[in-house]
Amino acid sequence: MARLVMKFGGTSVADVARIHAVAERVAATVAQGQAVAVVVSAMARVTNELVALTRSVAPLHDAREYDAVAATGEQVSAALLAMALQSLGISARSWLGWQIPIRTSGAHGSARIQRIDTRELETRLARGEVPVVAGFQGLGPRGRITTLGRGGSDTTAVALAAVLGAERCDIYTDVDGVYTADPRIVPGARKLDKVTFEEMMELASSGAKVLQIRSVELAMNYRVRVQVLSSFGDAPGTLIVDEGEIVEKQVVSGIASSREEARITVLGVPEGVRAAARVFGPLADANINVDMIALTLGPDGRSASVTFTVPRNELALTLHTLEGARRAIGFEAMEHDASVAKISVIGVGMRSHAGVASRMFKALAQKGIAVAAVSTSEVKISALIPEAYLELAVRSLHTAYGLDAAAT
Amino acid sequence: MARLVMKFGGTSVADVARIHAVAERVAATVAQGQAVAVVVSAMARVTNELVALTRSVAPLHDAREYDAVAATGEQVSAALLAMALQSLGISARSWLGWQIPIRTSGAHGSARIQRIDTRELETRLARGEVPVVAGFQGLGPRGRITTLGRGGSDTTAVALAAVLGAERCDIYTDVDGVYTADPRIVPGARKLDKVTFEEMMELASSGAKVLQIRSVELAMNYRVRVQVLSSFGDAPGTLIVDEGEIVEKQVVSGIASSREEARITVLGVPEGVRAAARVFGPLADANINVDMIALTLGPDGRSASVTFTVPRNELALTLHTLEGARRAIGFEAMEHDASVAKISVIGVGMRSHAGVASRMFKALAQKGIAVAAVSTSEVKISALIPEAYLELAVRSLHTAYGLDAAAT
Repeated sequence: MARLVMKFGGTSVADVARIHAVAERVAATVAQGQAVAVVVSAMARVTNELVALTRSVAPLHDAREYDAVAATGEQVSAALLAMALQSLGISARSWLGWQIPIRTSGAHGSARIQRIDTRELETRLARGEVPVVAGFQGLGPRGRITTLGRGGSDTTAVALAAVLGAERCDIYTDVDGVYTADPRIVPGARKLDKVTFEEMMELASSGAKVLQIRSVELAMNYRVRVQVLSSFGDAPGTLIVDEGEIVEKQVVSGIASSREEARITVLGVPEGVRAAARVFGPLADANINVDMIALTLGPDGRSASVTFTVPRNELALTLHTLEGARRAIGFEAMEHDASVAKISVIGVGMRSHAGVASRMFKALAQKGIAVAAVSTSEVKISALIPEAYLELAVRSLHTAYGLDAAAT
Repeated sequence: MARLVMKFGGTSVADVARIHAVAERVAATVAQGQAVAVVVSAMARVTNELVALTRSVAPLHDAREYDAVAATGEQVSAALLAMALQSLGISARSWLGWQIPIRTSGAHGSARIQRIDTRELETRLARGEVPVVAGFQGLGPRGRITTLGRGGSDTTAVALAAVLGAERCDIYTDVDGVYTADPRIVPGARKLDKVTFEEMMELASSGAKVLQIRSVELAMNYRVRVQVLSSFGDAPGTLIVDEGEIVEKQVVSGIASSREEARITVLGVPEGVRAAARVFGPLADANINVDMIALTLGPDGRSASVTFTVPRNELALTLHTLEGARRAIGFEAMEHDASVAKISVIGVGMRSHAGVASRMFKALAQKGIAVAAVSTSEVKISALIPEAYLELAVRSLHTAYGLDAAAT
């Protein structure tokens, strides 16, 4: 019997009516003869409320206690969905992370799944029962509840699909798939039928919030076919698959963008060739995530300017850290800009196609959009631009790479 | 080092400010050199909301899934209180039922505690850590979360005090002790300094909702000294102790009352002497809790009238059950009254004092209050009266037994 993991996000189980709708969908899939394991997120808004509660009790709280609070959201939704399934005559039960158990590292708040004991789940699936697994949570090495971080339920679902040898992992969410660009910005954006793991990884890290990046990484490593689709309709979604499964590769599959960026430029850093190490050492010590980096050597080669981006909500911490290390780094001045955005062109086809980058710069230049920094990977080119130009840039690139609906 | 179990009810941890106030109180007790274990209920209203949620998903829900939902309330409050304690520099951590574990029967929704593993708690207490235990929950025989039923956190606290050999179990609530009568009804009601386990049992089963009856039973069996006191003040509360600890015994300690009663009279039941068995057999099969019973044999002794009370919310089910068993029972008619109340006079001293009952009937008669049924135990006399007379009856009896504040 084919096995399927179905994962439902917070908006899909936001209220009692939607929980029943999800149950109907699961029941219909079971009726088709599939063996189904379900993974659920907390009901929409619940996790945010729980997090706010822990913050108001103690701003600097014990991550282990935070996890005990945060994990209750999925505990509730899993049990409610099991009840809803039972009311449809489906044999179902809820499973918490510690009950399976899903063993994780002890990194509370961002734990990593290490081992999933599938014996009991296998037995239940074999007798036609539907396990409803609370996503986002696991059991740490010291017997305490851990959580996997934001979007962790996607990771739970993909991991479960991997260990159960599921044919596919369907991620139901409030969008109906992965688009060539954000449809709110580009009205002509098209839904992609298929996208490769590599492209999805880059999309996830470039601002397309459809899937958590760790779940895509996991899917890629274990070759789990993932489908992203809407829980509010019946249309097929976007399949995330191995490159080999995509016959006709697009040079560029999509344009992603992110506003959550801030730019910092450190001017007059001595020892030009070692400037990057001088600047990024203290930031690494402070656990600050540096993304794009551009380095400009001064004319004499003895000093350099270092430009880089950090998540916007880490800007203050970054400035504070650099100021504290000013003497050690020895820089002359520092400037920053929190009104920048990152725009990325993504596609596995660009590996074998020249001129993808130049088309990007040409399109941006034609609209008079200044590029402050650039970074590239094998399947992505990102540019840092003024935030005000974000929509214009996305639309221009969408057209420039022939992605508009009319163009296909 | 003296050990103390401190239990805080839902109103005591109703919001963030109150959780901090509870933490301050625990910290002050720790500062006095006591080893403290804390038990918490869910934040006020949370359990009701969770119960409503399960009902709206499936009115006839799986009790195991219900328990998984309901137990999250205490999971959250225990973790938040641990955080609040940590913020005061107290070493503390939350403990869920399954983590200790508190092993219970498999009767989901009303499980009974069977065994508590104290090893880990002992170790933590010895090193000065404060365990914050989620009340109301345990681990069932099949590895699932169980709950102990309404007010179950009191039971958790008393059980913990018993197994840890605590000197006392302090139950913090929104009232400052046990009163001679409900102060909202009798302005002159006095707080009792001490009350015996037996009296407290009768009070709990007669409408005084200070403590869950099972927790009192447990305290009596394991001789755990329990104190009921307010978390909103510093006054001493009421100590529930062994009879031997009370030197000057009152004949009557208090007057309790309950509106949650309904009366049913079944008329013309054949085989008068076996009438009770005929009527109560079907009710027992339907799990209906019958309380007061009065049986009147007809003049010929061949038929009887049976009057009894059931919880008001079980009236419809009771009538339905009796109607269904009408042919088997063979009764002639049935009448019921949902506007009745039970009033109880309680005191260990009545064992050795005559005339306690006659004083009750006299006082009620003087006010023209009709008594529909009577039941007695060693330390209690209860009378069923029209609900409209409840306050009048409580005040009259409070005066008749010399309990008014001025009278002491």
